[in-house]
Amino acid sequence: MLTLDVPRRIAMRMRFFSDNAAPVCQPVLDAIAAANTIDTAYDGDQWSAQLDERFSSLFGTRVRVLWVPTGTAANALALAALCPPYGGVICHREAHIQNDEAGAPEFFTHGAKLMLAEGAGAKLTPEAVEGVIAGIRKDVHQVQPHAVSITNATEYGCVYTPDEVAALGKLTQKHDLGLHMDGARFANAVAHLGCEPAELTWRAGVDVLSFGFVKNGGMSAEALVFFRCELADASLYRRKRAGHLLSKGRYLAAQILAMLEDDLWLANAAAANAGAKLLADAAGERLVYPVEANEVFLKLSADEAQGLRDLGFDFYDWGVGEARLVTSWDQTEEQIRPLAEAIAAL
Amino acid sequence: MLTLDVPRRIAMRMRFFSDNAAPVCQPVLDAIAAANTIDTAYDGDQWSAQLDERFSSLFGTRVRVLWVPTGTAANALALAALCPPYGGVICHREAHIQNDEAGAPEFFTHGAKLMLAEGAGAKLTPEAVEGVIAGIRKDVHQVQPHAVSITNATEYGCVYTPDEVAALGKLTQKHDLGLHMDGARFANAVAHLGCEPAELTWRAGVDVLSFGFVKNGGMSAEALVFFRCELADASLYRRKRAGHLLSKGRYLAAQILAMLEDDLWLANAAAANAGAKLLADAAGERLVYPVEANEVFLKLSADEAQGLRDLGFDFYDWGVGEARLVTSWDQTEEQIRPLAEAIAAL
Amino acid sequence: MLTLDVPRRIAMRMRFFSDNAAPVCQPVLDAIAAANTIDTAYDGDQWSAQLDERFSSLFGTRVRVLWVPTGTAANALALAALCPPYGGVICHREAHIQNDEAGAPEFFTHGAKLMLAEGAGAKLTPEAVEGVIAGIRKDVHQVQPHAVSITNATEYGCVYTPDEVAALGKLTQKHDLGLHMDGARFANAVAHLGCEPAELTWRAGVDVLSFGFVKNGGMSAEALVFFRCELADASLYRRKRAGHLLSKGRYLAAQILAMLEDDLWLANAAAANAGAKLLADAAGERLVYPVEANEVFLKLSADEAQGLRDLGFDFYDWGVGEARLVTSWDQTEEQIRPLAEAIAAL
Amino acid sequence: MLTLDVPRRIAMRMRFFSDNAAPVCQPVLDAIAAANTIDTAYDGDQWSAQLDERFSSLFGTRVRVLWVPTGTAANALALAALCPPYGGVICHREAHIQNDEAGAPEFFTHGAKLMLAEGAGAKLTPEAVEGVIAGIRKDVHQVQPHAVSITNATEYGCVYTPDEVAALGKLTQKHDLGLHMDGARFANAVAHLGCEPAELTWRAGVDVLSFGFVKNGGMSAEALVFFRCELADASLYRRKRAGHLLSKGRYLAAQILAMLEDDLWLANAAAANAGAKLLADAAGERLVYPVEANEVFLKLSADEAQGLRDLGFDFYDWGVGEARLVTSWDQTEEQIRPLAEAIAAL
Repeated sequence: MLTLDVPRRIAMRMRFFSDNAAPVCQPVLDAIAAANTIDTAYDGDQWSAQLDERFSSLFGTRVRVLWVPTGTAANALALAALCPPYGGVICHREAHIQNDEAGAPEFFTHGAKLMLAEGAGAKLTPEAVEGVIAGIRKDVHQVQPHAVSITNATEYGCVYTPDEVAALGKLTQKHDLGLHMDGARFANAVAHLGCEPAELTWRAGVDVLSFGFVKNGGMSAEALVFFRCELADASLYRRKRAGHLLSKGRYLAAQILAMLEDDLWLANAAAANAGAKLLADAAGERLVYPVEANEVFLKLSADEAQGLRDLGFDFYDWGVGEARLVTSWDQTEEQIRPLAEAIAAL
Repeated sequence: MLTLDVPRRIAMRMRFFSDNAAPVCQPVLDAIAAANTIDTAYDGDQWSAQLDERFSSLFGTRVRVLWVPTGTAANALALAALCPPYGGVICHREAHIQNDEAGAPEFFTHGAKLMLAEGAGAKLTPEAVEGVIAGIRKDVHQVQPHAVSITNATEYGCVYTPDEVAALGKLTQKHDLGLHMDGARFANAVAHLGCEPAELTWRAGVDVLSFGFVKNGGMSAEALVFFRCELADASLYRRKRAGHLLSKGRYLAAQILAMLEDDLWLANAAAANAGAKLLADAAGERLVYPVEANEVFLKLSADEAQGLRDLGFDFYDWGVGEARLVTSWDQTEEQIRPLAEAIAAL
Repeated sequence: MLTLDVPRRIAMRMRFFSDNAAPVCQPVLDAIAAANTIDTAYDGDQWSAQLDERFSSLFGTRVRVLWVPTGTAANALALAALCPPYGGVICHREAHIQNDEAGAPEFFTHGAKLMLAEGAGAKLTPEAVEGVIAGIRKDVHQVQPHAVSITNATEYGCVYTPDEVAALGKLTQKHDLGLHMDGARFANAVAHLGCEPAELTWRAGVDVLSFGFVKNGGMSAEALVFFRCELADASLYRRKRAGHLLSKGRYLAAQILAMLEDDLWLANAAAANAGAKLLADAAGERLVYPVEANEVFLKLSADEAQGLRDLGFDFYDWGVGEARLVTSWDQTEEQIRPLAEAIAAL
Repeated sequence: MLTLDVPRRIAMRMRFFSDNAAPVCQPVLDAIAAANTIDTAYDGDQWSAQLDERFSSLFGTRVRVLWVPTGTAANALALAALCPPYGGVICHREAHIQNDEAGAPEFFTHGAKLMLAEGAGAKLTPEAVEGVIAGIRKDVHQVQPHAVSITNATEYGCVYTPDEVAALGKLTQKHDLGLHMDGARFANAVAHLGCEPAELTWRAGVDVLSFGFVKNGGMSAEALVFFRCELADASLYRRKRAGHLLSKGRYLAAQILAMLEDDLWLANAAAANAGAKLLADAAGERLVYPVEANEVFLKLSADEAQGLRDLGFDFYDWGVGEARLVTSWDQTEEQIRPLAEAIAAL
């Protein structure tokens, strides 16, 4: 009854909707199986116990890490740690936290206000953030900003460099604001940059990182990484209170550890990025944004989009005259090339 | 590095801390593996799409079902569906929602008040609930009750019969209150009673059920079952907003479907119940409550508890002079009998 | 010690900062004094008991009315009655609820999202509202709108006509949205239009009105008017829970009744409007918006503004190169004319 | 139309329902009239500006003070300052914050849990508080206490002495908990004790005090007094966000200043206390609690209660076989003596 019929499987291989829908990579499945023994419940198990150390090693500084099952939970918990109910969080108008989390930031923060700024490719600039701050009177009638949240790679597949993040980090420190990075595609950003994870985060002023694994081959585990370790304690309570402390947490921790092992997270992200590069090269002038991660936004008329769909490729329209193609860790060059060729042939 | 050394595995087999810590049963793992293909993200996949029908068939009435990763999330979403922020939920003083969910009900309901009632074995009686209601003035200065929440099987391993639930259901209907059942161990209750799931729920007046699978051999999926289907729509938004809409939801839906297949949920629960029965028979006069599910509370002096621990058995003390033993779906008679004999020999 | 010295009083007479700061009119003070006897606490007194009937008579339909001490409380309670925590409220980018209530809407609604639309003079048009709605995907990832809130007169002293409100009312009914009117200066709007209060509210589709009295000569009482009476019951609980059920509520009810007596509310508003008209006539081409209520926005260079201040007139700058002048119910022509002349002489 | 007919006025004089319903004393009305001039809106006026200094002088230490219109707002803001959303507040089972504020503490704190303790006369003892703390596991599954709230004088008219408060203060400091005093009848407590306000508050470890004036002759102003001054800044935002920053705040500040002038607050409280003493002396053996403030709880059969009501005295029944009589600042001995005599004659 759960058997998948073959045509469906093939069709699925031609889907470019989202990395969200990709399967789980084998090492993660293996790690889940290997964790299938009794151990202490919640996060008292031997796998969860390794997270702080493993991520501290990865980032080259002491961090505290909580697993959660979704990026939305990671982001919302991060914002709750940085912003009181009566405060505000500056983010891009196109940020996932504003547009695609159904108000989770408002829920977890108990009503903080998202303050929207502009910027090409869904990237915030220091100028844009300063503009938002300058527009707020420093009195009790207006919500005051307490944090800035950026997404790296962004919702449009653009990547902040360490210098760009550091410029924002300097600004947030000047204004005594927290700095959160939504890293649902952090791996794609690091793979693109070839930098140390530290450079892109705490050394640049990031306080909390939502480190995504689910879009990158994981099943149901993201890491909430606190560079300001003192924020983690309250977050442990908030996580439980939000129903995100799974009783069999070892299955989440094990996924994450498997992704860190031998830098699988980077290899998977590099594969997805390479797929997007293939499409980008074919798209040429059609590209709306530089392709720096695993998302490709291109100009496409309705007829052209239909043409591609008639060939069996699935993807989202993105507004009028544009389309979004997302590649995944598991898509091979041979699976992607037909779409690249079809785009080139338009 | 993830290899488990043998002594640890053996020690684990002697743990009677909680069914929360048990491993995942093979059909659930198989279902996860079988779902490991691309499909629509979130709950748009073919597995999630089957839930409403499968549970409607199980309960003999039309229901709507949402998967969530934890029982706490299920309970808190259920209460939010039944109680406004300015209302109250009547529950037992020993209820899990009051004592072990870190304020999740208050978080999801935006501050509703839990109103505590008494009752042997953590069971509410109509009299106890009426007593709470009678003690509340019907004016705006006091929080008014909007729902009642019961746990079946209870936190002390006792089981409400269909008649007992129906008596509460009659009361809640009379007072226009919602009725929620925390069924973290619903399977154990049904297995004990040998009744139809319908008798114990909607026919008895239950509006929403948290149907637990994780303690019963699942990994990370519980079912939130709405017998009042009109409550489900808003709950879809609340689930997303709470970060509980996993992007790869098929891995949760597949777990639940596997548990329903051939009544695996009942077989697993029956096994756990049988294990507890074995201990209960050995405990005799020491029992604090009748053993109707998979939990055994017994009188045990500190010396006796130490004696059992010296033999390699692990369990929680429960207050002074009592202990809690919980059996799991995976524990065989041969694994449990040594503890039973040790208790009998005290 | 509380004696005011004369120079301060004179200076105050030349303030055009806000109608918020004006004194209380004599009939309101008299009513407070007349209410200074024992009566039932909270809203059980004889004055509070008259509100429903008095406002029902004023509006020509059955309404339910709650007093509250501030317009912010009125607005936020209204929005909480119309929008669930997971919903959104469409309002103007310049709306008071967005900019000047410190997040009260988010607090009272438990995190609903304000969805900002544009429009000249801080007025929403049906097109602008439709544009916001059209931009929201109808899925659980995006917050869905549940209400529209407009301010009449607007934050820029512009007035919606009954037809303009009705056009919005038609739209909100089509989309099943609630319609709230922030009427902090509702009296000024009605005085300007010379219409029936009914035309501007329930006949045009308004569900809830924040009917302001404090800016119009009251001390500490606003009326929250429910045209959809069934919304009032829950609001009684929300009011108490927000700490807005004053124990000596008669002093609030008496204020409101005094304002309604012999249409004092209209007379006061007409006086304030007339003052603004005087300034508007003097300002001529400098006006940024048509002056339809008691606020005047005019183009004014920094030097010109300083010149007026040197003459003893106080007012707020409004961005760069603009200023806001607000007239009050108590300012006489002779008090305002000097400023009008000074403006004309610029 | 607002004229009160004479019989009603007389009847009112025989009401012993609540000090909440009493009229406002003349100096407060005079102060309101004296403040009836233009000044800066909100709390920027000359009256509000005096509060910090006046209360600092009264308490002999630097404090920060916010006016609010209700005791419920004061209490709820205080708790929000001391307890995070995921925390708990220990209070008496009969505390006003638990029973008579419609969930305001849960609303303002965003869902903190009230943790109920017992104690005669609604007084908490260190033992009772320690008992609550001891019953809470120090793990993330249980809500952890962050504050203790006591009421002085209590809901049963009993008074904590400075030593009793200090014992609790010592305990809260040991456990790193905040200490809030609900002083709706703080004046009655101080008048009874004849102590310095400092002794009963900050010197005894109180962090925040809700200093009540409304029950004691005020109209609509309570003082929220922060002995830990650093807590005040966030509370300014919370107050605005809760709709409690009245635009004409001078009318509240002026009330409070009038009450402080020449210790009117103490004189009024002493008068109310004296009235209760009169009744207490008449009640003798009937008293349920020692009468230390302005509330008298006495044993009274249904027939006896009816008898007193037949004589024109109004009051609340308090459970079965008990009644509550509350005296006010304005009731003279000659107004109270008839009731005292009627009680003595039972």
